[in-house]
Amino acid sequence: MQLSSRITSMQESPIRKLVPYATKAKAEGKKVFHLNIGQPDIETPKSFMESIRNFDQKVIAYSFSEGLPELIEAMIDYYKKYDMHYEKDEIIITNGGSEALLFSVIATMDHGDEVLVPEPFYTNYNGFTSAVDVKVSPITTSAEDGFHLPNRETIEELIKPKTKAIMLSNPGNPTGVVYTKEEVEMLSSLAKEYNLFIIADEVYREFVYDGLEFTSFGNMKDIQDRVIIVDSVSKRYSACGARIGSVASKNKELIAQILKLAQGRLCVATLEQVGATALYKTDQSYFKNVNKEYDRRRNIMMEALNNMPGVFCKSPTGAFYVNAKLPVDDAEKFVTWLLQEFELDGDTVMLAPAEGFYSTPGLGKDEARIAYVLKEDDLKRAMEVLKAGLEHYPGKTV
Amino acid sequence: MQLSSRITSMQESPIRKLVPYATKAKAEGKKVFHLNIGQPDIETPKSFMESIRNFDQKVIAYSFSEGLPELIEAMIDYYKKYDMHYEKDEIIITNGGSEALLFSVIATMDHGDEVLVPEPFYTNYNGFTSAVDVKVSPITTSAEDGFHLPNRETIEELIKPKTKAIMLSNPGNPTGVVYTKEEVEMLSSLAKEYNLFIIADEVYREFVYDGLEFTSFGNMKDIQDRVIIVDSVSKRYSACGARIGSVASKNKELIAQILKLAQGRLCVATLEQVGATALYKTDQSYFKNVNKEYDRRRNIMMEALNNMPGVFCKSPTGAFYVNAKLPVDDAEKFVTWLLQEFELDGDTVMLAPAEGFYSTPGLGKDEARIAYVLKEDDLKRAMEVLKAGLEHYPGKTV
Repeated sequence: MQLSSRITSMQESPIRKLVPYATKAKAEGKKVFHLNIGQPDIETPKSFMESIRNFDQKVIAYSFSEGLPELIEAMIDYYKKYDMHYEKDEIIITNGGSEALLFSVIATMDHGDEVLVPEPFYTNYNGFTSAVDVKVSPITTSAEDGFHLPNRETIEELIKPKTKAIMLSNPGNPTGVVYTKEEVEMLSSLAKEYNLFIIADEVYREFVYDGLEFTSFGNMKDIQDRVIIVDSVSKRYSACGARIGSVASKNKELIAQILKLAQGRLCVATLEQVGATALYKTDQSYFKNVNKEYDRRRNIMMEALNNMPGVFCKSPTGAFYVNAKLPVDDAEKFVTWLLQEFELDGDTVMLAPAEGFYSTPGLGKDEARIAYVLKEDDLKRAMEVLKAGLEHYPGKTV
Repeated sequence: MQLSSRITSMQESPIRKLVPYATKAKAEGKKVFHLNIGQPDIETPKSFMESIRNFDQKVIAYSFSEGLPELIEAMIDYYKKYDMHYEKDEIIITNGGSEALLFSVIATMDHGDEVLVPEPFYTNYNGFTSAVDVKVSPITTSAEDGFHLPNRETIEELIKPKTKAIMLSNPGNPTGVVYTKEEVEMLSSLAKEYNLFIIADEVYREFVYDGLEFTSFGNMKDIQDRVIIVDSVSKRYSACGARIGSVASKNKELIAQILKLAQGRLCVATLEQVGATALYKTDQSYFKNVNKEYDRRRNIMMEALNNMPGVFCKSPTGAFYVNAKLPVDDAEKFVTWLLQEFELDGDTVMLAPAEGFYSTPGLGKDEARIAYVLKEDDLKRAMEVLKAGLEHYPGKTV
């Protein structure tokens, strides 16, 4: 019984593959602080469950393949606040941002085509692409540069005849980078010159700190026929389990083609779309409070990390992650050890080893992604535990 | 801006592509009876909404990639009633049966591989496969044979080196065929001899009439390492909008590999899984009543169809569809005409033209799928309207 090579060669999620060790640690009575996954503890706005509880149709029927009209309308209004102007037939609701990415890749690339992705990148980019035989070509960035992009010429050299698109998250997961307006313009100009699509995963759009201004690829007016905006309610409204995402583009033909894929899976869950409609009507002041909360957490985390000898990272300016260099031989071994062997008065901590976020072999071996998604006290305690772990780890390098 | 050839060459859903005409007809004040889509009007068991209304966690968090443990447990118990015995690590919850089919195809077939599918087939089989560069090789069946399979030798001749699997729905959509135990055994023996997987879409398992016994591929004990069972709550519990499906197999390695795809899209909607858990605990007596209801509708429909000159179909024995030959030049033109030009006292009817259910060019042009998913009075009226439509259609052939 031979399975396909595309599935057997696909890497396991580095975020999720150590979960069994965490489960075992918990079973043994340890408390595990989860800094490995972007699962915020912020409350989902109450309007989500309220609107669902009020749903009173007797048959849970199929929704429209393109999504619930009310939800699409709510998203159109939401985008206007960012000077992004979409029409009804330019948005399709998807099963989370994940399906939006998969659809975008299928629609723009054939078997053997390549997509440029700044690395380290959201690991599932690798999964989506390898499942459909598209190759990731990495634009390497580093902790030393705060994960900002290399210059135009360096990227230009990576573009080959098979290169069809640039895919990236901005603000960045796992790096927390927020690309400058100049970077966004540079990539846009490359896309125009080399006839590439841009698949812009902007699910962390509201999570930008230090007073920085966020520039969306949706604001690059002269290349809107080649821009695909991927969004999701998961992080925006702390509703990861709703699985409501979307794909938006001013390229109507592209959206019409993606609709065929959407029709193939019939529709997205009806109730969750009802809930997401309520979420997208949330007042913008909600983001201000959430933003302040993450900013505080970020500062707590950075202060703690800066006090750990051998740990290196610049302060991230967006999303809720930092990708830190750790003074260890191998971050995956370190995290496994934290879960299996270590505890500080019954507590341990879980990070996401970063090697899986790179496609260039060897990179990221001593790095881990840390998500600052826990409330102040938990985060402080998690940092204490991490510090002690680094001191006791047999494979430490300082 | 060049889109991928796999997306541009993908056919539109024949079930959904005429929807804009229906929308227009309704806007003009016509009543449209929808016999084109398998959207039952049977009430979803109340336990679905009740369990969701009682959900009281403040954060709508990610679920497990493989699915909610309680739902998997409920499914294990459900399967036992059919003498199918799965363990926890042999089932993965998916976004509807659609994602289960897509995952199964990706996991068993590479670019350029082929899958045998009895035609006419559920049209989205074409969508899933072409999106990931797998080719459907049809096993042609006909209305005259009640859409039963040809003999072993005929199928054997279709198996080529690139053939990796047989995929089929049983009971059949769009045909309503229920394969006999002998047919299921014959395909199982071919799978064994030629080292093929069997992807068995059994979402209509409970919808079998005339006292026939249903044989699942899950009951073919000696080939369980090559059988993948696809299921869904959509039709079973009249919960199409819940989008909860599953893939099950005794081949643990296959399930472990599919889990990587599941991790790639993180998880299925949390609330819908809570609701589906309640559904799978529904007493089996529920099916008896629903079955009786569909049986009654089937008889009403068949009596009406038998009274329409030139219409041919054997009485289907499963699911809730019939694929009928109509006395028209082109079923798609006919349905378009029904929506655009025809009405009987303000009423019209919509069917699914069957050409898109065939992959052999030219087949099915004069056929349409009719779903008997409406309650008695509506179905009777829809049949009157269809009869009148056939009498008045300019392209009629009798």
